This record gives sequence, C-alpha cells and structure tokens, in this order.
Amino acid sequence: MSIPPPKERRLHLDGATLLRQLRELGEIGADSELGGRTRIALTDDEKAGRDLVARWMRELELDVVVDRIGNVFGVLRSESDDCSQAPLMMGSHIDSVTNAGALDGCYGVLAGLAVARAFRQAGIAPARTIMIGAFTNEEGIRYQPDMMGSLVYAGGLSVDAALNTIGTDGTRLGDELARIGYAGDLEPGAIVPHEYVELHIEQGPILEAENIQIGVVENLQGISWQQVTIQGNANHAGTTPTHLRHDAGFVAASIVTFLRRLAQNSGGTTLATVGCLSVQPNVINVIPRRATLTVDLRDPDEARLKLAEQRFADFLEKLAQQEGVKITTERLARFEPVVFDAGLVACIEASANRFGFTNRRMTSGAGHDAQMMARIAPAAMIFVPSQGGVSHNPREHTDDDQLVTGAQVLLDVVLNRLGQALA
Amino acid sequence: MSIPPPKERRLHLDGATLLRQLRELGEIGADSELGGRTRIALTDDEKAGRDLVARWMRELELDVVVDRIGNVFGVLRSESDDCSQAPLMMGSHIDSVTNAGALDGCYGVLAGLAVARAFRQAGIAPARTIMIGAFTNEEGIRYQPDMMGSLVYAGGLSVDAALNTIGTDGTRLGDELARIGYAGDLEPGAIVPHEYVELHIEQGPILEAENIQIGVVENLQGISWQQVTIQGNANHAGTTPTHLRHDAGFVAASIVTFLRRLAQNSGGTTLATVGCLSVQPNVINVIPRRATLTVDLRDPDEARLKLAEQRFADFLEKLAQQEGVKITTERLARFEPVVFDAGLVACIEASANRFGFTNRRMTSGAGHDAQMMARIAPAAMIFVPSQGGVSHNPREHTDDDQLVTGAQVLLDVVLNRLGQALA
Repeated sequence: MSIPPPKERRLHLDGATLLRQLRELGEIGADSELGGRTRIALTDDEKAGRDLVARWMRELELDVVVDRIGNVFGVLRSESDDCSQAPLMMGSHIDSVTNAGALDGCYGVLAGLAVARAFRQAGIAPARTIMIGAFTNEEGIRYQPDMMGSLVYAGGLSVDAALNTIGTDGTRLGDELARIGYAGDLEPGAIVPHEYVELHIEQGPILEAENIQIGVVENLQGISWQQVTIQGNANHAGTTPTHLRHDAGFVAASIVTFLRRLAQNSGGTTLATVGCLSVQPNVINVIPRRATLTVDLRDPDEARLKLAEQRFADFLEKLAQQEGVKITTERLARFEPVVFDAGLVACIEASANRFGFTNRRMTSGAGHDAQMMARIAPAAMIFVPSQGGVSHNPREHTDDDQLVTGAQVLLDVVLNRLGQALA
Repeated sequence: MSIPPPKERRLHLDGATLLRQLRELGEIGADSELGGRTRIALTDDEKAGRDLVARWMRELELDVVVDRIGNVFGVLRSESDDCSQAPLMMGSHIDSVTNAGALDGCYGVLAGLAVARAFRQAGIAPARTIMIGAFTNEEGIRYQPDMMGSLVYAGGLSVDAALNTIGTDGTRLGDELARIGYAGDLEPGAIVPHEYVELHIEQGPILEAENIQIGVVENLQGISWQQVTIQGNANHAGTTPTHLRHDAGFVAASIVTFLRRLAQNSGGTTLATVGCLSVQPNVINVIPRRATLTVDLRDPDEARLKLAEQRFADFLEKLAQQEGVKITTERLARFEPVVFDAGLVACIEASANRFGFTNRRMTSGAGHDAQMMARIAPAAMIFVPSQGGVSHNPREHTDDDQLVTGAQVLLDVVLNRLGQALA
C-alpha cells in the first residue's frame, strides 16, 4: 500500500515539459538513417545541445556559469545566499556516444532543470542554493578519460592536462572547447557542493526484469580501461605453416575469448568487454601484423577488480611467449569502486517508499559523474528502468511515466534535503 | 657434382639488367615511411608500373598488346609466325598488396623480359613465338576475386562481369581501367598459349629451411575465401551481465580461434587465416553490435578443403544459436586445387639438375596466375627461396644470386621447350 504524498506540497513537477525537452534535445545531432543521435563532446552538434540547455537555464532565470573545462551550471540561489553557500547540486551530461539514445545523461540534466522549474512555478526560493550541472565529456569517445568534466571538477585531473588532451581525431581538447565557445572562467571545483544527486536511466536490465520503478544506487563498480597492442608478423596466408605463424589477429581473438572466460569464472561480479578491435594490414590473404584492442574490466569490489587485472596481465605474458609476439598495454582509465553517502541513499529510499514506488538498492554498472563528485561531496544516484537493458543505442527507452516518476523522486529528495518537503 | 652447362649455348641471361629492373620497378609506389611499396591494381601508382614495364617491352622491340581486362603482353615472334602460332607464354603480375615487397609477381614478369632479352642480345629469333604477360589484379586487394586478369583470360569469368566489379573504394573496375589508359582491344583468351611457365618467389619458408635453390612446383592448393558478417546487439559494457550479451566481437574472436584449431587438427594440410577483422561501433564501452571478418581456407586436396568448409559452416550454425546472433557468409572466391603439367614439371626438374641446382618438388601455397592459365594450356611454376618465408611485407627478400639462378632455369626451360637448348 502506498503512503499518501505530503498534503501541503506546493511544488509540482512539470512532467510534460521535462518529456518535451528530452525529445527536443534528442533531436540535436540526429542520425537520420540509424535512428539515433550523435553528440560527441565538443563537436558542433554537442555545442548545439549546450546552447539549447543554456537557453533553457536562462528561461528559468538561472545564473549560467561555465568553468574552464566547459562544465555548464545553472544556479538558482536561495534568498540567504551571499554567493558563499555550498549548493545542493544535481547534474549529469549531454554529450553522447555514436548513434546514441536520447536519455543517457540528458535525463539527469533536464530533470535537474525540472526541479528548478518547480521552484520557479511555485514562486518559492530554495532554502539552500541549488545548482544543475552538465559535465563536459562524460562519454570519453573522442577524448579520454571519460567522465572528464566531473573528474576535473573533483580535482582528479588538472585543468591544463585535460585541456591538452589530444583526441582520436588529432584535435586538442582546449582548442575545440574554445572553438565552440565553452571555455569558461570559473575554476573547476571552486564551488564545492553541499551534496550531489544524479538521476539516470539504469542502462542495464535489472529494474525492468524485476518490475521495479526506482533503483536506489548505493555504490558503483570500479572501472579499468586498457589499450592492448599486439605486434606479430605479416606473412602470406597460403604459404606460412600454422606453427610458424605470429598472427596478431589470432592473439587478439585469444584475448577476447580469455576475457569471456574470466568474466564467467568470476561468478558474475566481474564484467569484461572488448569494444574496439582492429587489425593491420587488414587484407584478406595476409596474416595480421598488428592488432589493437581495448579492454574494459569492471567489478564493484576493488580486490576482485585487481585480481582480474592481474590474471589478465599473467595471461598476456604467457600468450606473448607462446605465440612469439610482442604485447604492450597502456592504461587508459582506472577508477576504484565508489560507495555512495549512506544518508543520501536512505533519503532516496525513503522518498520512493513515501510515494509507494517499488524500489531496490543496487550497484551502478556504468561510470557516472556522481562517482567523481563523490570525491568532494556526499553523493548518490537514482535509477529508472531501461527497456531491455539497452543503452548506447537508438533503441534506448524508458517509458514516459517512469521518467516522470524518477524526476518526482529527485524533486522530493531535494525538498527533503532542503527541509522544504512539507513547506 | 654439377653437370657442366651446354657448351654451345649462345643465349645468355643478363642477370644485372634483371636485378636493376626489379629495383627500379620496386621504387614505384614506394611508401617512404614503411619501407615497402603499394601498387594496388589500377591505381595511379600501378599505372606508373605498367608504363615502365611496357616501355621496357618496347625497348626490346616486343609487340605490346593489351587486352580488354588490361592484361599487358610483350610478344617476340618466331620467324615462322604468321600471327597464328600458339606462343610459349611466361608471365605473372606487377600489382601489389599494401606495403609490399618488390619481388612478388614482378620477378616473373621481368624474368620473362630477361628471356626475351637473351634472344635479342644473341640476335636469335625463338623457334616458337614467346610472349610475356603482366596480368591485371592478381592480388585482389581492391577488386575481388584475386587473379582476376588470368581468370578472365582463361575464360573463368566474363570480361563484362570483371569490368563491372565494384571495388572496396566504390569504384567500377572498368572505369578505373579506362582512366589509367589500359582498356585494350584484344579479346582475353584470343591467343591460346602452347604452354605457360611462371617463375615466382616461394613466399613461404620451405626452400630456405631446406637450403634448396629451386622449387619445382607440381601442384597448387585450393583456395576458399569467405566474408562473414555477425549481427549481435550493442549494449553498455558496464551494465550488461555476461550471460545476456550478444557480443558480435566475441563471436568473431571465437571464429578466429576455431579456425586455428581447424588448421592444427588437419595435420598441417589445411591453412586457415582471418586477414580482415573489424567491429562496430568500435567504442571502448559498447559491446560490439556487428563484426565482419574474412576467412581464407587452403588445402592441396579438394576433398579435405570441402571438409574444412563444411566443419566451418557447422561451427557457425552452432555458434550463432549459442550466442543469439545472426551470422551470414558470402563466398568471395573459390578455386579448386590445380595439378600442373607433368611434362613441363619434369622439364623444370631436369633443367635444375643439369645446372646442378639443388631442387625439390613442392606445392604452391599461394594462388598464382599459373593456376588460371592451367585451365587453357599445359602450365607449371618455378620457385626460388624467400628469406624467412616472408612475403606481402617490405621485408620480402631473395638473394640476388638466387634471383638470377631462377631466371637461368626459366631461360633454359624455354630453350628446351623450343628445342633450342643446344643450338
């Protein structure tokens, strides 16, 4: 049985506007042929997305602030704020992978705006300043590491190092940021949030499979990214006996199948993915001379993640010897698992329970800006179901009523943290 | 002990010119950075190679004839030739793979010119017209199938079908052939050779390993080329449990490792190579949605080759079911094993023995134009050692004296077949 919502709630979530803005932002960078949209960080299409979100912030009369790494913030001040108050921050990102869905990241940013809109529409000021962030380059498609904007904001990477990052297309991040007009003045991290809450689609199959409305995210997996390069020997496919081959493509394939076994043998806690894979010279009758691939390892437990990394390194050493090839690895990203703030997590759970929304505590499989912000402020996340667990794909989908439900919980949590829930 | 060469031989092989021409042709399309050269069929660089070879043919006062598929022939007529005599043909190709060595194909063409040069320098006409062919698109890098020029010449593919081939770069072969000025008038196959001999580097490790000078090639492996496309499901790398994945990259890797086992279990007769391999969307934290790869299967025995193809097809069916993906295959090329002409093979062996060159009978692992010409004329091949078995690579190398040795055998075989050996 659901407990009735607070009787005197004067702030109302405008679900229709939230859904309309999600659709409108999702049209920017649309891939007409593939059905998705592509707004890779600091491209023209992503700039168009930033412009739209900044316009919506201004329409809500928020102060729009951009920091040196291009994070965009909309600020709604409390009456008592003399510009020194630590704000309650919400946020996520609006950059995307290639041919993406419309919800990943955008949902958290636009739901934050919906919270600000609730205050504006009710004519009420927040008891503490609230701030909505759209962090730069969460996806890490063009510039690595991913979650870069929040990482810099939380002090995990210097602004200058981030600005000097060279992209997969040879561009310098700082140049592209200036080009699109989002190289701001604010020093990242200058405004330390009082708390940080991020609403996001699950991007996994659990909530849908268990028919649950709200995921109360209490921790987040550790992530280990490596690039592996294999140097073998190009030779003619028809004349080189199998036992004399140094086939970089076969070595790459052996790595992919080893990682599958590694994940299977972990009992389901470790995830392993090879997302990028290419061979050279990539010619039908030439044994590949060189292969490159990326490895994405995840585990909610740091000790188990380290063990997976060690097993992988041991395997590579043995494999290189066995096949007579040279294997080199480069670490692209490494983040330890994060445990979110217990008080904030409990508040999210209590809010879902008050509304009568089915909920469960869970681990985030994906990396999120919240994991960076957790370094400098109490943080937690709210999930809503992803249909079929699909994300990073045009078929990414969450029902409208579920999107509104998640935003209602976000608003309720904010009101509770500000002590305005029963205002 | 070597038997002395025939005493009254008035024809002499000009090894220095042969070696100089090999170097000069090898400079066309040179990749300054990688140390090799790239003359892919019907590109500007390959046109420059054709122009140079045609110039050298004209310098020897050969008739230069180009057929409709762009095969270039230099003809040295006998005194009795009324243009109806079936010529003794030598030949190979001058197109290359990407970043290739200087010898593959070019050696056979330029050694053919060295035979013509021997007649010219001695002032002697051949007893039967001789003809040196440089066949179009032997490598099949840009347009498939490979060995296309000789295949068309031998009647295995219609000229129009070949001209309408669309390349990996979207170009039509016939348009590119006309663009570079090598769309000739001769109907392919109009001049049926009396016999065909092709001199080539081994492109494999056997002759060097056994310290043998001349390979007497008595047969050639069958070749089966397929393209495999895997359609899986793109999903987030961090949130999709292993057992729910439909990972096209993992399926591709499983195919590569299966093919290695298939080759190993054949007892060394079947060779299997995956030369091309790519995944989509090729993003570090996205499970590959789609993968494509090529499969090159070879065996000197048709029944064993068919068995390998069947085992592979069975494996794909099982794998598709097991991983919940769709796998489609397209046949790119299929050539049965070829047995060369016993008389010509015996003649090559006898010639090597007369010179006292160590030799052995062997199978060609690679496909060659000779396998096509064997459809319309008695044919055979002569091999010289490849250092380290390396080919399709800038490190492809055969010592100068070994290159001259092979050309001497070619000249001697031609003279024997023409009855002019002891003239």
